[in-house]
Amino acid sequence: MFEKVLIANRGEIALRVARACRELGIRTVAVHSTADSDSAVVRFADEAVRIGPPASRRSYQNAAAIIEAARLTGAQAVHPGYGFLSEDADFAEICADNGLVFIGPRPEVMTALGDKAAARRIMRAAGLPLLPGSIETLATVGEARAVADEIGYPVIIKAAAGGGGRGMAVVRSRSDFAGAYARTRAVGRAVFGDDRVYVERYLAQARHVEVQVLCDGHGNGVHLGTRDCSVQRRHQKLVEEGPAPGLSAATLDAMADAAVRGAVEVGYSGAGTFEFLVDEAENFHFMEMNCRIQVEHPVTEMISGVDLVHEQLHIASGVPLRIRQDEVRLRGVAVECRVNAEDPTRDFVPTPGRLERFHPPGGPFTRVDTHGYPGYVIGPHYDSLLAKVVVWAPERELALDRMERALGEFDIAGPGVCTSIPFIRRVLDDARFRKGQYSTGLVDRLLREPGTSADVPANDPPAR
Amino acid sequence: MFEKVLIANRGEIALRVARACRELGIRTVAVHSTADSDSAVVRFADEAVRIGPPASRRSYQNAAAIIEAARLTGAQAVHPGYGFLSEDADFAEICADNGLVFIGPRPEVMTALGDKAAARRIMRAAGLPLLPGSIETLATVGEARAVADEIGYPVIIKAAAGGGGRGMAVVRSRSDFAGAYARTRAVGRAVFGDDRVYVERYLAQARHVEVQVLCDGHGNGVHLGTRDCSVQRRHQKLVEEGPAPGLSAATLDAMADAAVRGAVEVGYSGAGTFEFLVDEAENFHFMEMNCRIQVEHPVTEMISGVDLVHEQLHIASGVPLRIRQDEVRLRGVAVECRVNAEDPTRDFVPTPGRLERFHPPGGPFTRVDTHGYPGYVIGPHYDSLLAKVVVWAPERELALDRMERALGEFDIAGPGVCTSIPFIRRVLDDARFRKGQYSTGLVDRLLREPGTSADVPANDPPAR
Repeated sequence: MFEKVLIANRGEIALRVARACRELGIRTVAVHSTADSDSAVVRFADEAVRIGPPASRRSYQNAAAIIEAARLTGAQAVHPGYGFLSEDADFAEICADNGLVFIGPRPEVMTALGDKAAARRIMRAAGLPLLPGSIETLATVGEARAVADEIGYPVIIKAAAGGGGRGMAVVRSRSDFAGAYARTRAVGRAVFGDDRVYVERYLAQARHVEVQVLCDGHGNGVHLGTRDCSVQRRHQKLVEEGPAPGLSAATLDAMADAAVRGAVEVGYSGAGTFEFLVDEAENFHFMEMNCRIQVEHPVTEMISGVDLVHEQLHIASGVPLRIRQDEVRLRGVAVECRVNAEDPTRDFVPTPGRLERFHPPGGPFTRVDTHGYPGYVIGPHYDSLLAKVVVWAPERELALDRMERALGEFDIAGPGVCTSIPFIRRVLDDARFRKGQYSTGLVDRLLREPGTSADVPANDPPAR
Repeated sequence: MFEKVLIANRGEIALRVARACRELGIRTVAVHSTADSDSAVVRFADEAVRIGPPASRRSYQNAAAIIEAARLTGAQAVHPGYGFLSEDADFAEICADNGLVFIGPRPEVMTALGDKAAARRIMRAAGLPLLPGSIETLATVGEARAVADEIGYPVIIKAAAGGGGRGMAVVRSRSDFAGAYARTRAVGRAVFGDDRVYVERYLAQARHVEVQVLCDGHGNGVHLGTRDCSVQRRHQKLVEEGPAPGLSAATLDAMADAAVRGAVEVGYSGAGTFEFLVDEAENFHFMEMNCRIQVEHPVTEMISGVDLVHEQLHIASGVPLRIRQDEVRLRGVAVECRVNAEDPTRDFVPTPGRLERFHPPGGPFTRVDTHGYPGYVIGPHYDSLLAKVVVWAPERELALDRMERALGEFDIAGPGVCTSIPFIRRVLDDARFRKGQYSTGLVDRLLREPGTSADVPANDPPAR
């Protein structure tokens, strides 16, 4: 096992990784921007190196500074967390060139899967079902529109290099196609430096269901069940749960098996996630694969008992997969809610500020991953994720009741600081969500309902 | 199910019970002394009633005031937590007389089991192995000494009504017997109002292992595995874990089966615990049964996935046991450490004071039950338990590593406030504890080692 690992990230995930390292006896190096000098992981880690100014391209995405910090501290491996450099194949290669283990799949695997059009080709070859659409990128509007005409509207145009909800356009009629095509290419070029696009059928009422896999790169792979992530606002997940509710065991098993098959086929190593869209008839379609730990990974940890970050570290250190599929035991239901520092009554605008009070929920079957603490200053530089509240119960209904209890006792207060909790509680209260009958359209429906933006319930009196 | 439950307790267990009630849709009434007006449960509960001054006999043990609070608020049931009135059969009867459900076993069962000598007779009749000793109380010193002479020294003299580590005297030689006998009777009379005593063989190097049972009073009972509670200082538990390590599956199964048999035999209902002493040859001996939820119940919750307080509430509301023995699935290992506000370098003297900082650990497989919060004032009136840190892992070694990580990030500070964490970390570091080869003598051995009382390791830098 590694003796020292550098954590090339910030916020809750950096602390999460540092906790895993400490539990395995690995020393940790936190790197941080000047904006994060007082962060939880800087205090928790064994060493900390300030690597640049707040702008992430000059700190958390600054490969040279991170490599230099690893060299200075003698770290042997780099854990990229999620976001930032976590899916950057170039960075993984630079790590290797500098004698550092990048904790993730091999660079060529990341390159192949990072190109969403190429990933479609690979997974089709592995026998995974795709949504109807192109399996090559489409260089002209005429070629692209011909694909759209063939599969029928609505369609979605996606940037091959896109991610994080950017570089996608839904087209509902033929007359809108040319404009959307041009815009998506422009976004791809501007944001991702790559203007290739492809076209797929658009499913408005689909379920977003994903499968967690672990592979060792030596031909061994397992899945740890499914997560439903359909509760999204502008392609950002708000609530995740596992196993995906309301789907037959046969569908869930088939998806999970397909994911393992695809991952082994591509030579994947580490923790990864297959994202599928599932239609009302329970047909599932491969969408993309995420080559990193995900924000919602605690859902899987609570139902499987497997520490995914531990397994990432073991795999990266060269240990063969430590768990066989027939040893995986999934139990009960877990739900995760993301608590963002933003104002649901003002279009979810981020609300930076100082936390005067910050007391997360505790008690039975309740996990909180957060970098917040009383006195913590939420800056304007990074995403607004402040905490993840995760609960477990033997049955889904009790898990949701437990989540309502936990969110109700989360005490967060500071001048100007709002949280997404009131909106999340509306999701949890929604009758169709309660029944497990929801799709990616849920959040938009709630936001369209009268009185929505202002009429959010107050928190319960907190338990401090 | 009840609509409203009164919680006749304080501290972490009152909040624990209130959380369970909220998850089940039950409204809660907190009762509190004037010293606890700012307590977490008072803020969390739906209603709160101040029932008296700090002295517990005038508040938390004041049956009349509690019954009156239940009447005023319309509560249908009373959850007594642990300590205070939780094993007071008279209080349970008073509840019944006032139309309130006491959440616990029937008064006559409590009476029978609360008399430790009577409990020995009952469990012997149910076929449970006892330590050699008297099965009747011993009214004269001559009669008592004759028992001691027969079973051989060392022996322990116990008050039949004793509990909480009080009313016990170890006698190592015949010449000390008469004095110890007189003292134990005096303590029994003074503390418990009952001077009857009995005599047992004393096992110095025994393991204290207990079995968690759930029974519905209709002949159904299950066990949820074992807990080892041998890490004790003056009969107060410091560290608990489950399953009990280092014992054969056959021994653990035999103890668990014996406990269920004894509980069903006595007509037990609710959550209860059988305490056994286990000698080096793995012979186990019934010691006593606790007729209430225990401090260390989260250990069992984490390995079984069963919420014991939920089950207490279901059983008390008249629902038959909701789980069969063959449905109980125990998984992995859980460890609980009690964080007390006391100074291990000064004979564990309580250290009341105001908490300027209070940031419990979080993250994977880590549970904290606490009533503490930043600004909370630990008063001088009650026991010093401030928090319980509970972790889970698939294997014991990882659970212990995880506990060290979690304790290391617990940030507690305030003028004059100390915690037991540094001493607990010495326990976790002890080679024999690490191997699972420890007995009730562990703490005394650590306290005898040179440099002990002052030479406690500092906490890691906290994650805030």
